[in-house]
Amino acid sequence: MNIGVIGYGYWGPNIVRNFNNIEGTQVIAVCDKNQKALKQVKKIYPKINIVSECREITTSKNIDAVAVVTPVSTHYEFARQALQNGKHVFVEKPFTATAAQAEELINLAEKKCLKIMVDHTFLFTGAVRKIKQIVDENMLGHLYYYDSTRVNLGLFQHDVNVIWDLAPHDFSVMDYLIDEKPSAVVASGKSHINGMEDIAYVTVHFTNSIIAHFNVNWLSPVKVRTTLIGGEKKMLVWNDVNADEKIKVYDKGIEVKNKEGIYNLLVSYRSGDMWAPKVEQKEALGLETEYFIDCIEKSKTPINDGHAGLRIVKMLEACDKSLQNDGKTVNL
Amino acid sequence: MNIGVIGYGYWGPNIVRNFNNIEGTQVIAVCDKNQKALKQVKKIYPKINIVSECREITTSKNIDAVAVVTPVSTHYEFARQALQNGKHVFVEKPFTATAAQAEELINLAEKKCLKIMVDHTFLFTGAVRKIKQIVDENMLGHLYYYDSTRVNLGLFQHDVNVIWDLAPHDFSVMDYLIDEKPSAVVASGKSHINGMEDIAYVTVHFTNSIIAHFNVNWLSPVKVRTTLIGGEKKMLVWNDVNADEKIKVYDKGIEVKNKEGIYNLLVSYRSGDMWAPKVEQKEALGLETEYFIDCIEKSKTPINDGHAGLRIVKMLEACDKSLQNDGKTVNL
Amino acid sequence: MNIGVIGYGYWGPNIVRNFNNIEGTQVIAVCDKNQKALKQVKKIYPKINIVSECREITTSKNIDAVAVVTPVSTHYEFARQALQNGKHVFVEKPFTATAAQAEELINLAEKKCLKIMVDHTFLFTGAVRKIKQIVDENMLGHLYYYDSTRVNLGLFQHDVNVIWDLAPHDFSVMDYLIDEKPSAVVASGKSHINGMEDIAYVTVHFTNSIIAHFNVNWLSPVKVRTTLIGGEKKMLVWNDVNADEKIKVYDKGIEVKNKEGIYNLLVSYRSGDMWAPKVEQKEALGLETEYFIDCIEKSKTPINDGHAGLRIVKMLEACDKSLQNDGKTVNL
Amino acid sequence: MNIGVIGYGYWGPNIVRNFNNIEGTQVIAVCDKNQKALKQVKKIYPKINIVSECREITTSKNIDAVAVVTPVSTHYEFARQALQNGKHVFVEKPFTATAAQAEELINLAEKKCLKIMVDHTFLFTGAVRKIKQIVDENMLGHLYYYDSTRVNLGLFQHDVNVIWDLAPHDFSVMDYLIDEKPSAVVASGKSHINGMEDIAYVTVHFTNSIIAHFNVNWLSPVKVRTTLIGGEKKMLVWNDVNADEKIKVYDKGIEVKNKEGIYNLLVSYRSGDMWAPKVEQKEALGLETEYFIDCIEKSKTPINDGHAGLRIVKMLEACDKSLQNDGKTVNL
Repeated sequence: MNIGVIGYGYWGPNIVRNFNNIEGTQVIAVCDKNQKALKQVKKIYPKINIVSECREITTSKNIDAVAVVTPVSTHYEFARQALQNGKHVFVEKPFTATAAQAEELINLAEKKCLKIMVDHTFLFTGAVRKIKQIVDENMLGHLYYYDSTRVNLGLFQHDVNVIWDLAPHDFSVMDYLIDEKPSAVVASGKSHINGMEDIAYVTVHFTNSIIAHFNVNWLSPVKVRTTLIGGEKKMLVWNDVNADEKIKVYDKGIEVKNKEGIYNLLVSYRSGDMWAPKVEQKEALGLETEYFIDCIEKSKTPINDGHAGLRIVKMLEACDKSLQNDGKTVNL
Repeated sequence: MNIGVIGYGYWGPNIVRNFNNIEGTQVIAVCDKNQKALKQVKKIYPKINIVSECREITTSKNIDAVAVVTPVSTHYEFARQALQNGKHVFVEKPFTATAAQAEELINLAEKKCLKIMVDHTFLFTGAVRKIKQIVDENMLGHLYYYDSTRVNLGLFQHDVNVIWDLAPHDFSVMDYLIDEKPSAVVASGKSHINGMEDIAYVTVHFTNSIIAHFNVNWLSPVKVRTTLIGGEKKMLVWNDVNADEKIKVYDKGIEVKNKEGIYNLLVSYRSGDMWAPKVEQKEALGLETEYFIDCIEKSKTPINDGHAGLRIVKMLEACDKSLQNDGKTVNL
Repeated sequence: MNIGVIGYGYWGPNIVRNFNNIEGTQVIAVCDKNQKALKQVKKIYPKINIVSECREITTSKNIDAVAVVTPVSTHYEFARQALQNGKHVFVEKPFTATAAQAEELINLAEKKCLKIMVDHTFLFTGAVRKIKQIVDENMLGHLYYYDSTRVNLGLFQHDVNVIWDLAPHDFSVMDYLIDEKPSAVVASGKSHINGMEDIAYVTVHFTNSIIAHFNVNWLSPVKVRTTLIGGEKKMLVWNDVNADEKIKVYDKGIEVKNKEGIYNLLVSYRSGDMWAPKVEQKEALGLETEYFIDCIEKSKTPINDGHAGLRIVKMLEACDKSLQNDGKTVNL
Repeated sequence: MNIGVIGYGYWGPNIVRNFNNIEGTQVIAVCDKNQKALKQVKKIYPKINIVSECREITTSKNIDAVAVVTPVSTHYEFARQALQNGKHVFVEKPFTATAAQAEELINLAEKKCLKIMVDHTFLFTGAVRKIKQIVDENMLGHLYYYDSTRVNLGLFQHDVNVIWDLAPHDFSVMDYLIDEKPSAVVASGKSHINGMEDIAYVTVHFTNSIIAHFNVNWLSPVKVRTTLIGGEKKMLVWNDVNADEKIKVYDKGIEVKNKEGIYNLLVSYRSGDMWAPKVEQKEALGLETEYFIDCIEKSKTPINDGHAGLRIVKMLEACDKSLQNDGKTVNL
């Protein structure tokens, strides 16, 4: 399987390295506008062809799949070109700048029988795979809430706000873990530096008992990457900053004995052992790129296909709409 | 100074103990409906008069000030009785169940030249006093955000939701630290157990650059009490769960060099030393009750007077209104 | 059961409060040389008789058991008086200033059919009781090591060094958890302030595979109370400073495949889940004082009897001997 | 400057990468017995010459300096060859297997006017450089103790015990930070797996007020890398496992007012702010290899020269002697 990679900025080197590590797969061309980036490619991988015109990748006869590792505003155009020329597509998150673009790409891929995979890397971390297993085994019971904080000092993106930059990670994990579909979104935020929101808070409503919340912030002095998932039976804390014990499952909860009236409620707290399951350490992107190749070869639908990407883009669009309307609730 | 205390439940014993510790001040009567609570008073303080009818406190000729330590729905009535009978009033947070009640009590107290103090205990902790000093010295510079998380396993209140239970702590601290007045509130939440919201998220908007956010949750397996305060010059983390190093001030920030266009922004991160100032350990309630006596004796206006209480109640009312209207923005 | 308490300094108030809390048991007299301490007793417990001459306690006809809560140098004399007058004895740790004294008291008690209990409080904490259960169930397998650190800023004692002050806690826990008896002790330390060692390191040897080590320090800027217990099957960390998750059991270890020669060793690391069992929160001293009464009433031998106290004193004496001889190994 | 590297095991790749990163310096040959390792070199650095006979490196005319990155038992032989053939030498820690070997190499290098640098990498970390500055500025005052713990699950070495494996890091840091020379060593330890001590405790005595202690352990379920340095004026904690705030300086201490007698001592505790200075993040080995080149070019004596290496080896030898004699104190 021959891979062409468009974009060799912050994340591109990881994409190239991981695809290159797969037995039987190789990156044969990398495209970037930046000559310095291309020189870097050549230094590490003398055999890879470097080009500065993306058409040389999207139209190349030797390339089977194209990885689009560029700013989100360009995803649609590069992915479209690749699909039209019969190439499978691996696209950075978020999938596209609009839901309409995502839908068009999904249709095009289906028509051409090609695979789209959106790089929701976190789904392939040991932590999220373990949490998925815990949730699927119903260890937590009926879910109550999903509460995520992802803050740090870092204004990485010039063209999108902090929600588009950070929340796709958490939206994609929530989308993967929770079967129910969200019904509405409320977002609030503030811009201090460059006209884009650098701090934002997103509440996601569901039609059932779940409420989800996302705290994203580019101006935090400390790095926090914590998700609490509360269930009727147990509760889970995922602390991704920890080197060890990333997941802790608490045998804690509330039991209500008497529901006849508010003042007669007998609420008791249940508090038992804590369990921190072992989490596999394999590089997530390595597993994901292998899975991409496997999905192509075995004609499987990826868990992080275009539809998954579209669901995240719809949430991001709803966030923007809510932000622009003073925190109005936007139905999905 | 003779004090009468109405209510001897969870917090009452602390109120009695602290007023009793003040030189020249003594609690002379405690009222509660619960005979077991009254017996407990008698056992520890044989000299205190125990009564089950609050009028015996509010109309007593020997009592100078009344502490109202009962559920919020009763604050107005007990405080009103006390004020009408010429007693100064110390009321648990939140001040009253409605802003209208708070305003009436404020007017009554002013007419009668009596003091109202609302028990915003956190203002008297070593941590908040130190943060106040740091903010007032402009060490953080222009403020960007105030982001608070107060979560735990504990459905303490039967008659109010999690916002009315937990957020008054953080609202009162924010009100104390930030001179600007909030302009609007957005709240979202969910009820899982008893019809009251047990998880809620509140965003508070200001007309200037500040955004504030409050995450309150009765269903968390872990106890988190963290507030981040971000400023242009420095950033502060207050972790109240820590035994030591409760406050950390980070010499961290973002510097923007070129503001001519989004893509030309030269953003650089500034990262320097961290400093954890010593925080005084004296019991907050001890300082607060002494301060109450001092305000009465010296005719000073408490920082946590009725107006401070009213501002918090207005925010709580706005939260309820926002919750009832699907997260609508409610102006203050 | 009527209790007399000798000594009302730092720890005395806890002893009085806990004995007084036991149904059917009451402290009827407290002795101290310090009039201020006695006044404090009277204020809180008007019914307790206060005396400044210990003979009034040790010879009182109404007293069944005497608690000796004084500096270690006086333990022997007070305990001897009490035993000779037919009273059971509860003595602070360390039991006595010399092993000879401990042996004499043990013999006296046996002759008189009286109980001695040494206040090894930690044995009654939820954490140590849980660890005892884990060790007894052989969950850790064959033990490899016991490594304890107990450091803090605090020169509590004027008359003993840091080993006599802090190590009895850890010696008594080790003595309780590990069935094998230690064979030798090596101690090194340094005095900086008052001629007593304020920092010390103790290694305890066993005839089997276990090695134990104790790091005690009065001059540490941070409070550390951590014990690692390594076994062939699992390993345990007891962090007593944590409010939650005091005990963590790690499914970690080393497996050696090929023992034919050092260079052919195939060492592999086993790393599995971590488990933090729930630890009971009941006050240790409450359980211990109840247990003392129970042992007297039911004629049971306490786990922390005079012999247990003697074993700890023997280790302390050996430490002193090693310190005085430049870290010489002292056999037990 | 042309570098030859002997040994491409665990650490070798870092040595090659860092020397290769230096402007004007390049690794031109790597030697290893393991063909797989050599293949790995060729794959990453096609231009580097790979050899399996170390003489091809030590006698090569094109090579200016040789890095010896092999097990300690071979250091002497490879370094001697290199020096005899006029090459500067960069040797892994610990320098040699015996002090006699180290002295011979030092003499040889001096005779030939060649540089020896021992890879005491930690001296070049941001943390240790910052601590050195703090100590040199006398911020801690007169030093009281140096207490280091370095434990983990990991039996890395087949041919040396845990002291020879882990303690050289801490010995070299102590040697760098503390001007006074240690006077004696006491070591105790235990072997559980392969006949080498896998757990050991080392106390190092000085003739002045300092005491140093080292806790090294290959069988710990948790990774701890903490050093406490206590001084008369301030105290420092270096926690190398932390991603941030690796160094904390505590304004804590003990003040003694009255030294007339033990019982009249008025000890008071001083507790002020904590300060966590920013620590530079540059890769230590990068700085160290650059410094090696710089020392050669400018004829400077490295801080980590053969004499520094020898001081560490002498301590290691003393530890072995103490271990073999039941924890006897061994003078240095």
